[in-house]
Amino acid sequence: MFYGAVEAGGTKFVCAVGDQEGKIIDKITLPTEEPQTTLSTIYSFFDNYHLTAIGIGSFGPIELNKDKENYGEILNTPKLSWKNFNIYEAFAKRYKVPTFISTDVNTAALGEYRWGSAKNANSCLYITVGTGIGAGFVNMGEVLNAWNHPEMGHIHVPRHKNDTFEGSCPYHKDCLEGLASGSSIEARYKRKGKELGHEKEVWELEGYYLAQAIMSYSLILGPEKIILGGGVMKQQTLYPIIREQLAKLLNDYITIEKMEEYIVPPSLNDNQGIMGALALAIHGYAIKSSEGPVNT
Amino acid sequence: MFYGAVEAGGTKFVCAVGDQEGKIIDKITLPTEEPQTTLSTIYSFFDNYHLTAIGIGSFGPIELNKDKENYGEILNTPKLSWKNFNIYEAFAKRYKVPTFISTDVNTAALGEYRWGSAKNANSCLYITVGTGIGAGFVNMGEVLNAWNHPEMGHIHVPRHKNDTFEGSCPYHKDCLEGLASGSSIEARYKRKGKELGHEKEVWELEGYYLAQAIMSYSLILGPEKIILGGGVMKQQTLYPIIREQLAKLLNDYITIEKMEEYIVPPSLNDNQGIMGALALAIHGYAIKSSEGPVNT
Repeated sequence: MFYGAVEAGGTKFVCAVGDQEGKIIDKITLPTEEPQTTLSTIYSFFDNYHLTAIGIGSFGPIELNKDKENYGEILNTPKLSWKNFNIYEAFAKRYKVPTFISTDVNTAALGEYRWGSAKNANSCLYITVGTGIGAGFVNMGEVLNAWNHPEMGHIHVPRHKNDTFEGSCPYHKDCLEGLASGSSIEARYKRKGKELGHEKEVWELEGYYLAQAIMSYSLILGPEKIILGGGVMKQQTLYPIIREQLAKLLNDYITIEKMEEYIVPPSLNDNQGIMGALALAIHGYAIKSSEGPVNT
Repeated sequence: MFYGAVEAGGTKFVCAVGDQEGKIIDKITLPTEEPQTTLSTIYSFFDNYHLTAIGIGSFGPIELNKDKENYGEILNTPKLSWKNFNIYEAFAKRYKVPTFISTDVNTAALGEYRWGSAKNANSCLYITVGTGIGAGFVNMGEVLNAWNHPEMGHIHVPRHKNDTFEGSCPYHKDCLEGLASGSSIEARYKRKGKELGHEKEVWELEGYYLAQAIMSYSLILGPEKIILGGGVMKQQTLYPIIREQLAKLLNDYITIEKMEEYIVPPSLNDNQGIMGALALAIHGYAIKSSEGPVNT
């Protein structure tokens, strides 16, 4: 059985055909252009296969509330030609197979949960710290998506007492994304993160804010593992700083047996998105077929 | 079919027998004494019925990780005679019927979800603001419980700029519980909350902190409804204050259609715990029997 996987990003799309075991049989990468242009290339690719199900991890915001009429629609994106385009319907209607969609970060979390750093865990939170900050949560194989989809990067955290930077989030100023994303680092220091490699204080402050956020995520969601990825996390010194700060903040209130196994890097080398989309297709199809025969 | 429901509190137990529709057929309330004393009264009560399944909402901390050997054990509680007592096993072994357990707040959330203020919602967060602060989350009928059970009352929130109170939480000083629980109100003002009814600033500050926490819960969990209960919330003026503060904080980043339908009081009049335990039994049994014949 072949499954289709779509990683829909704001600058590029990755599409793959894979099997149950996570083996990628075929794959293409293409730039994100107008929906019809992009999709016609993708259709020519998928049309070569008889797909059993399709999984999509998409940039957003997207409507993921199944009670809404526009389920699967890309909402208020700055990429105007994609605004109000229903990416879920595009695939579901063309291929008439079970189609599943989630956010890019939820899908990445699912990739790491099934095949990556969390493959033996019951639950994991995947946080990406890049231009922006986002996170996805998987518990017992299911991504968390209730009424509104998670926007975990925008929570507020206590300010560091010496920090006077006003924050760079256009919506909330000094929310986590406004204080600790790659673009906030650039706004704060007028240099890119990768040019600040040896500035110890930069990473101490960054680790302080990420640990504050992880404390909230830990107490609210209780994941077994937290995976930190994205461009900013290429700065390896952050991992030990975060672990130490988090231990101090939690003060043994919840049991984290080994901090170095709790806060970990991803292991799928930037493939968590596409592998997660494949996992979404496989898992969704398994659940659906356990409920009765699936018409394809 | 009769279901057993147990609301296990640190000062009292409520036990009930109810049916599928949430009708309570019989009920007892008893003080929390030593486990054997308390349980022998409860056994005499339940022994009169042929129970199909049992649901327990328990004070804690309790071990709720099914991968752990001591699943269902009450852990590090100040009620020493209950410390390391396995309340789940006590019921499961005596009645040999499917038995389900969760935290008191998760269970209360389930009660409001099935029969109370959230009965038409796909998900809800129930927050109790009393001596301490706790919260439980239900999504599509399932309570959230991943690796560690939620301890949502202990998240950190940004301090109000004029607030100099150090906080009363013995673990984290100025976490939410340390700044906004009933006992922190008493520590801060040297008077109980109910004696402060007309002090406008008291409730403005309280609402500010609760709104900060609700912002995090909303962005991380995305619930359809948030129900605020517990002794402190008897101060009705808090609801509009919280709604207003939250709208300001979110700044339209996620869509909350009607704030007055998003932040609501509970509707089960202090019965959400026992009704939730009943719902836990009913829902757990329904899932289990959908998987195959249940041996009872």
